[in-house]
Amino acid sequence: MQRDEPTYAYDGLDRVIHEKARLGVMTSLMAHPKGLSFADLKALCALTDGNLSRHLKVLEEAGFVDVTKSFEGRRPLTRVRLTAEGRQRFIDYLGVLERVVRDAGEATEAAPHTAPKPA
Amino acid sequence: MQRDEPTYAYDGLDRVIHEKARLGVMTSLMAHPKGLSFADLKALCALTDGNLSRHLKVLEEAGFVDVTKSFEGRRPLTRVRLTAEGRQRFIDYLGVLERVVRDAGEATEAAPHTAPKPA
Repeated sequence: MQRDEPTYAYDGLDRVIHEKARLGVMTSLMAHPKGLSFADLKALCALTDGNLSRHLKVLEEAGFVDVTKSFEGRRPLTRVRLTAEGRQRFIDYLGVLERVVRDAGEATEAAPHTAPKPA
Repeated sequence: MQRDEPTYAYDGLDRVIHEKARLGVMTSLMAHPKGLSFADLKALCALTDGNLSRHLKVLEEAGFVDVTKSFEGRRPLTRVRLTAEGRQRFIDYLGVLERVVRDAGEATEAAPHTAPKPA
């Protein structure tokens, strides 16, 4: 084994996106390029108000989403959409995720647990 | 939009496995069913001693890996391998990860950022 190649380091798995709830938020927004209301995003990702707010703050600070507040009559309306950078970073992230799935899939096929090959 | 279907919640993304470094550790071990030494695992995942120890503890407490310590002459040797449960849980996790990649891939194709479809 070559010690200098960190085959499974997956540096490209940006932690801002990789976190489970934020991964759901990013995927939702990718599927809705016109953006989503706070309420719809909350329902799609099964998050509480507090949790969604917290995760949106992280994504907004990273420059991955735009959050705009307006009014519909007297009702406040929060709208969230991906920025161009957020979209690109998510596409990059997905490339790494695909590699994880491929690496692990190959490992599963090549190396059945019950029949380890001799050294 | 149906408010009661949390399409992007991804509940199956077990946080014990999903964490970036542990994902690398699990994939490494999947590819090496006879197990890996601490040193090899460290190199494959580009982790420090302290980080790898910490993550192995989490995986061991979850029952996903076995850590055995022995001696090779006077040299201590730590060997890590997936448990049957760890292997099964990782396979389940991968199924969800594949769904994320598929959902996001479909979203990318269906909804180009520059041309949102009318409401």
